[in-house]
Amino acid sequence: MAAWSERLAGVRGVLLDISGVLHDSGEGGGVPIPGSVEALARLKRSQLKVRFCTNESQKSRGDLVGLLRHMGFDISEGEVTAPAPATCLILKERGLRPHLLIHDGIRSEFAQIDTSNPNCVVIADAGESFSYQNMNKAFQVLMELDNPVLISLGKGRYYKETSGLMLDVGAYTKALEYACGIKAEVVGKPAPGYFQSALQEMGVESHETVRRCWQAKIEET
Amino acid sequence: MAAWSERLAGVRGVLLDISGVLHDSGEGGGVPIPGSVEALARLKRSQLKVRFCTNESQKSRGDLVGLLRHMGFDISEGEVTAPAPATCLILKERGLRPHLLIHDGIRSEFAQIDTSNPNCVVIADAGESFSYQNMNKAFQVLMELDNPVLISLGKGRYYKETSGLMLDVGAYTKALEYACGIKAEVVGKPAPGYFQSALQEMGVESHETVRRCWQAKIEET
Repeated sequence: MAAWSERLAGVRGVLLDISGVLHDSGEGGGVPIPGSVEALARLKRSQLKVRFCTNESQKSRGDLVGLLRHMGFDISEGEVTAPAPATCLILKERGLRPHLLIHDGIRSEFAQIDTSNPNCVVIADAGESFSYQNMNKAFQVLMELDNPVLISLGKGRYYKETSGLMLDVGAYTKALEYACGIKAEVVGKPAPGYFQSALQEMGVESHETVRRCWQAKIEET
Repeated sequence: MAAWSERLAGVRGVLLDISGVLHDSGEGGGVPIPGSVEALARLKRSQLKVRFCTNESQKSRGDLVGLLRHMGFDISEGEVTAPAPATCLILKERGLRPHLLIHDGIRSEFAQIDTSNPNCVVIADAGESFSYQNMNKAFQVLMELDNPVLISLGKGRYYKETSGLMLDVGAYTKALEYACGIKAEVVGKPAPGYFQSALQEMGVESHETVRRCWQAKIEET
């Protein structure tokens, strides 16, 4: 098996996903994926820059990082690119006041955002809060706007929890897109702008090649 | 204004929608649309064949007809083409055992259907039953099938109730299609086969021209 040094020749930094890479989410925060704590520690000891790039939109960055640190991961809040803070920047830049269709666990991220008299809808992985009533309210807000803006925190189809597969925000975004005849703006992977801001925050130029290397820890064994 | 006899020259029969044509649905069954009771009575007195073709999938045919008769409409159960009975025929023909994501109001239509060990999902306008848990269960059933079959009773984006616009089954069908990477089979309008079966039941050959004439009652005034 090739050594890390060969496999990572020319690589300046590593963007790591969190759910499904560091841990499998689920009841009580989920469980670490075997070997991930050690792999991350090894990356941090290397010359590589490391940053985390997640579409997590049920938990605030603080709560997520707290959970991961409790599992033994060497991670801090400032190292995480997450869609809710990125969305807040966009809302402020464009003077948008969102109706929030989100999980209560992430509501604190929007504490500084004006949500009065909404002129857009922000949808995230709301989980159990994806009730018919909540979906219909978001739909009605969009239908009342002359220029309906729907911002979706990621477009995942589903994710894996310890209890099984779970519908992700992308499915519900498709429902609203179809009902309203509109196209959502995605903040999160795989939007190129989202990766670019993560690279900027890591201090790596976006013209440098981005390679997927988080499988290295598995292949190395 | 042209007389009915001129406007309907060559027309053999009339397929009438129900919601939004005879009545607006809503609390307590909704309200008749002004002039509709009289327009239907006049059609029935004419030489035209009359049949009702609906995508209603929250109420059984019996309940729907009872409601409309109470409002004064001359309508009987046998005159109504509805997606649930049409779906039951398909399920039996193809040996399909559905997981039902439906409103309780229509469950009686599926009383004779084997729902053990499901090999497909049937989705209808489930209204408040479109909880995250129920959607996720339907999603998981589909993901466990080698050949996932999703049958959707209509593909409406939304409908109007007296209280406002309401998300229809089509939005939720899109969500499952996207999450599972599949395409639903639609039983209901606008599927051509659905119109054809309504015409057959009315005794009008399907090669005869189908024209939209339900606006005649409004234009005539």
